[in-house]
Amino acid sequence: MDISTAYKDNNYKIHVDRNILKNVLQTYTKQYESVYYIIDENIYDIYKDSKLSFIISPLVVTGGESFKYVSPLMHTMEALLASGIKRNSLLVVIGGGATGDAGGFIASIILRGVDYIHVPTTLLAHDSAIGGKTAINSEHGKNLIGAFYRPRAVIYDLEFLDSLPEDEVLSGFGEVFKHAMLHSPALLDELMAATENSIDITALPPYIIKGIETKMKIVIEDEHESGSRKFLNLGHTLAHAVEYKYKIPHGQAVMLGIIAALYISNELNGAGFDLDAYIAYIRRHGYPVQLLKEMDIDEMMHFMQKDKKNHRSDYISYVVFEDKNTPAVTDIKIEDLQNMLTALKERI
Amino acid sequence: MDISTAYKDNNYKIHVDRNILKNVLQTYTKQYESVYYIIDENIYDIYKDSKLSFIISPLVVTGGESFKYVSPLMHTMEALLASGIKRNSLLVVIGGGATGDAGGFIASIILRGVDYIHVPTTLLAHDSAIGGKTAINSEHGKNLIGAFYRPRAVIYDLEFLDSLPEDEVLSGFGEVFKHAMLHSPALLDELMAATENSIDITALPPYIIKGIETKMKIVIEDEHESGSRKFLNLGHTLAHAVEYKYKIPHGQAVMLGIIAALYISNELNGAGFDLDAYIAYIRRHGYPVQLLKEMDIDEMMHFMQKDKKNHRSDYISYVVFEDKNTPAVTDIKIEDLQNMLTALKERI
Ligand SMILES: NC(=O)c1ccc[n+]([C@@H]2O[C@H](COP(=O)([O-])OP(=O)(O)OC[C@H]3O[C@@H](n4cnc5c(N)ncnc54)[C@H](O)[C@@H]3O)[C@@H](O)[C@H]2O)c1
Ligand SMILES: NC(=O)c1ccc[n+]([C@@H]2O[C@H](COP(=O)([O-])OP(=O)(O)OC[C@H]3O[C@@H](n4cnc5c(N)ncnc54)[C@H](O)[C@@H]3O)[C@@H](O)[C@H]2O)c1
Repeated sequence: MDISTAYKDNNYKIHVDRNILKNVLQTYTKQYESVYYIIDENIYDIYKDSKLSFIISPLVVTGGESFKYVSPLMHTMEALLASGIKRNSLLVVIGGGATGDAGGFIASIILRGVDYIHVPTTLLAHDSAIGGKTAINSEHGKNLIGAFYRPRAVIYDLEFLDSLPEDEVLSGFGEVFKHAMLHSPALLDELMAATENSIDITALPPYIIKGIETKMKIVIEDEHESGSRKFLNLGHTLAHAVEYKYKIPHGQAVMLGIIAALYISNELNGAGFDLDAYIAYIRRHGYPVQLLKEMDIDEMMHFMQKDKKNHRSDYISYVVFEDKNTPAVTDIKIEDLQNMLTALKERI
Repeated sequence: MDISTAYKDNNYKIHVDRNILKNVLQTYTKQYESVYYIIDENIYDIYKDSKLSFIISPLVVTGGESFKYVSPLMHTMEALLASGIKRNSLLVVIGGGATGDAGGFIASIILRGVDYIHVPTTLLAHDSAIGGKTAINSEHGKNLIGAFYRPRAVIYDLEFLDSLPEDEVLSGFGEVFKHAMLHSPALLDELMAATENSIDITALPPYIIKGIETKMKIVIEDEHESGSRKFLNLGHTLAHAVEYKYKIPHGQAVMLGIIAALYISNELNGAGFDLDAYIAYIRRHGYPVQLLKEMDIDEMMHFMQKDKKNHRSDYISYVVFEDKNTPAVTDIKIEDLQNMLTALKERI
């Protein structure tokens, strides 16, 4: 299935299906004089003799997040320049969200910008198919150096997901779940029914597509991150603190953050979520729910207060639901948040 | 005097006058929560107790071209992040074209983009007031990593030019001369009359302003560098080779390149330039014209063939004049160019 973005200009297609890489890629590459490939080393190891065997002399780069730093970035850029990349060359970036973020950033600054195509290989990377954010990490935090730069296309060949480790499936599913929740209660119910006892990756494509569409709708409504785009931070406020403290994959922390957001939505707005059902479902799939019991509330509060999204000093900005249909951003008094998280901790 | 850019959107003002920095800057800085300064060390040394004494704790960076490399760039970005730069901060970059190029590039990628103002301190930097190009150098060549990113404003306080070393005056004047030539024979005559025996910097402001306007007209006509923007490379084909070989400042090499372009325009198109008068004028001002006599033609040809602007293999792309009013880009056969440069060498 193909989705087209709906920006004012510079639109691109997101191709989503199994086993499409080689054929779809060809329709693009033939428009360029030369094509360069950046591939996550773990992906290349698995697929070099199969799906990726058609690729000649790619740049194989260090796997996942370790690529999102200035030194591997520069190393890769100098290699591209050494092999003669031109403004009208195409860069194809194959890997998860991390490889996509750094590869897209390279595309945005090499020769002041060349076209690139992202080929996401993780479930989580459905999230970065849209939004145009590229970045690397600084000594002072994640994603602090980067650019807004749209790909020429996204080719999401779902066959790559077959080799995705369980931990990464859980992480990516956190964002799929979040997007379904922001879409509608009906879609969320459907997703939870389809994955009642386990996350079967073959059942997910319709929800991946809905996830991309949901994010697209929000991002296009609010390109400059002043209003509804903030909804995409659902679950993220506590997640960043949990992720930082316990070093668990991002999307897993988001899932725990969603539990907190639902609890708070019930407390503040009487949103009426069946919290126990959600907790049971999330626990059943193997998310580390017990961290919500173990966490030190003071420590979590400390991390959350440093979040760059806060704009009033005694408050923490939080995405909650007013009712099951209506996400909203609200500033919660630090003391109130502390009390609610303490009560949640007791309930787990 | 204020010039406004005439792009479709994201326009900005170029303020040009003596002793305007502090006052004009204030009108911008008060719109931001925080302001950060990047200043060329040589400029800071000269002006820290006078023009720049109002600036508190700037980041003083290594002077000129040595700042245009990834290591000082990252060092500066980490320092900005350490001192708490935010998306709604303003970055003010004070220095010549090199400081402006690297500082503008930092502005374009830190936190995925913050506003910046360039305060040019060299004559040559009138050239970068317009065009939106930012960049740093790679191991493989100049300006290979960068972004198109427009400043919020350019504040060109001409008082800085008082301290400009003679070599840099000559360099910057090369581009002023080029812009006058691209504007009209009348403007060029006027400029040459005003600088007949020496380059008096106080006589230049009208020509600096005309230079900015001329470049603006060309850049806006042709944002994507497919047509008339190439005229801005007048003199640059040979200049890059001369500059690389003899390590002279860019604009000085451009002036020598212009001599070659005029000679070729006469030979190919009978453009009718009084070459001896130009050579005498250029020599009189202290440009190293004798390099055109010393140069090894084979070596120059070798460098010129590597120029990224060539698109046919046995030809070199060159900006010439069809007549005194009409610049044009033409592909010259390698052998023909070699013969013409050899003949020029004899004439010097
Ligand atoms: N730009 C955006 O809009 C956006 C959105 C969401 C996340 N992100 C970024 O994405 C990154 C996280 O991305 P991610 O979760 O995809 O992780 P990742 O790219 O770090 O990949 C996770 C691990 O899985 C391996 N891997 C990837 N695909 C595989 C496959 N098919 N089979 C086997 N192993 C595979 C990788 O080598 C790596 O070790 C973060 O840096 C985050 O900031 C960006
Ligand atoms: N972005 C663009 O459109 C554009 C256009 C033209 C040139 N450039 C770039 O500009 C650079 C050259 O710029 P430049 O010629 O201004 O040189 P520069 O910035 O390298 O400065 C030259 C020297 O003069 C010193 N200096 C600067 N101002 C001074 C002053 N007022 N008094 C005393 N000393 C001073 C500097 O410290 C340096 O040592 C090149 O890197 C070139 O690529 C960019």
